[in-house]
Amino acid sequence: MKYYVGIDLGGTDIKAGVIDEGFNIVAKHVVPTNPGRLVDEIVADMADAGKTAVKMAGLAESDIIYVGVGIPGAVNSKTNIIILTPNVGWKNVDFIPIFKKYWDIPVFLGNDADAAALAEVYAGAARGYDNVVVLTLGTGVGGGFVFDKKIFTGGGFGTEPGHIIIVADGEPCGCGARGCLEAYASVTALIREAKQIMAEHPDSLLHTLCEGDSSRVNGKIIFDAAKQDDTAAKAIVSDYVKYLGAGIASFCNALRPQAIILGGGVCNAGEPLFAPLDKIVESLIFSTGDGEIPPILRAELGNDAGIIGAALFGIGS
Amino acid sequence: MKYYVGIDLGGTDIKAGVIDEGFNIVAKHVVPTNPGRLVDEIVADMADAGKTAVKMAGLAESDIIYVGVGIPGAVNSKTNIIILTPNVGWKNVDFIPIFKKYWDIPVFLGNDADAAALAEVYAGAARGYDNVVVLTLGTGVGGGFVFDKKIFTGGGFGTEPGHIIIVADGEPCGCGARGCLEAYASVTALIREAKQIMAEHPDSLLHTLCEGDSSRVNGKIIFDAAKQDDTAAKAIVSDYVKYLGAGIASFCNALRPQAIILGGGVCNAGEPLFAPLDKIVESLIFSTGDGEIPPILRAELGNDAGIIGAALFGIGS
Repeated sequence: MKYYVGIDLGGTDIKAGVIDEGFNIVAKHVVPTNPGRLVDEIVADMADAGKTAVKMAGLAESDIIYVGVGIPGAVNSKTNIIILTPNVGWKNVDFIPIFKKYWDIPVFLGNDADAAALAEVYAGAARGYDNVVVLTLGTGVGGGFVFDKKIFTGGGFGTEPGHIIIVADGEPCGCGARGCLEAYASVTALIREAKQIMAEHPDSLLHTLCEGDSSRVNGKIIFDAAKQDDTAAKAIVSDYVKYLGAGIASFCNALRPQAIILGGGVCNAGEPLFAPLDKIVESLIFSTGDGEIPPILRAELGNDAGIIGAALFGIGS
Repeated sequence: MKYYVGIDLGGTDIKAGVIDEGFNIVAKHVVPTNPGRLVDEIVADMADAGKTAVKMAGLAESDIIYVGVGIPGAVNSKTNIIILTPNVGWKNVDFIPIFKKYWDIPVFLGNDADAAALAEVYAGAARGYDNVVVLTLGTGVGGGFVFDKKIFTGGGFGTEPGHIIIVADGEPCGCGARGCLEAYASVTALIREAKQIMAEHPDSLLHTLCEGDSSRVNGKIIFDAAKQDDTAAKAIVSDYVKYLGAGIASFCNALRPQAIILGGGVCNAGEPLFAPLDKIVESLIFSTGDGEIPPILRAELGNDAGIIGAALFGIGS
């Protein structure tokens, strides 16, 4: 059996895990990131967390083929320089030589959203597909493209699927642009839209479910109310699906993936989200006459995707 | 010197050319396509046109390394099956074995817009770049993505950059969807928008330049009137740039190309198109903090791009 270590660096935690060649997590160790510290201190903790996971797995460091590291920010895939990680406070960090001071082993580096995408393809919802677009619908919209079972890094910097523009000159986005997919399909956008529509529908069930405080509205409440045929909730879902569908169709037409994987809490809505989404995307896909519509599937790996995916960065190398 | 043959199949003409290793066209021969004929008849004419170009170049067939063929439709890059070519009337054609009946030589197949994109990277406006998005603004919006100097074919079928959605639920597009880039950035869309705005501005210079017949309006007239500070014309240009800019920004953020190449007659407008476009795209690009904005350049090769690019399909193979 071959073993790999995946390390998922986040703004809160450093998660390290040992992965076997069947993509199972054999052991996992999590330590706090404490961002803002010296780069060397954080990197030393990352190496330590990996080594601890190796010990927990009952393995020796020499059993590990390589370490893969997922970074929450932009990594130049040609130079391996970490350009920017807003939540960890790094800028222009040449990570690999620093890591090797603490653990001298082959190291592969990539973006954390790319890691999650790769994990879904090898070990999650997209098993069996080679060409997949993965989108995570959270505070923002992240994701990654996998082609020929490899991360598509575009022209070197990371892809930013949340920042394709689906409404020219539309809603302002956190990135400074207008009309980005993230400004319509993130949970943040869903809540913003919900509050607007709630204000226009004082009699909506949503107010009752929020106990009169619209700031309590969330994805579950919206989909629950829509299930009970609430007009306002149905309008919110319909708008959300319209925009998310436009984004998915853009990826389908530009990149021709075999499947779309959606992650993030909003996917817990299940059928009431996925059924209308399928319908809208189907209506927007550029047909070559073969009638193939890529399925839209729900991500399977949750929080472990980052570790498993990071451990896949060196695959095939 | 090494030589290659590129054949560009169009709805009107079959263009064949001999290309040298400096990407120059050494000889060119053009015959009518006469679409609707038997597949074999058209393919035989394609092979003949190529052989004639070889003779015109003063070469022997044995001097030719391979033939590359650009097809105006969807080609499955894995199976080499031509799925659909609306203007030639082909469906599910296994081209290469048919071609080899008439000319037994290595054959490489691809989409004609991809060919044009490849040509700009090797021999045109994008020389020196590895990662480029090429868009052709014509009756529709076509184009191709080149990454690591190779055509990006996505998940097997051709990419359709004209059919990313830039206005969710927007203008109807010829493809059956709504809000596609093509429905806003094609010349067809520019003219549609111009007629609308002209109707709202009966005193616009545009009416004079069209000699009172708004159906005569075209890109040149619009940009000429804008140069003369005509309010309606400036509004048309401003809208056009807004939508085209949103599409370009989507490609920049999703794919991170080093440059964008624009082709098609509307690019003759020059600075009055490119200057505001640069500004809009810059405002919409997701920054990684390195401040790099890919330049938007004008395609250089015009009608020869299809032949040169087809001859590049086998490069590196």
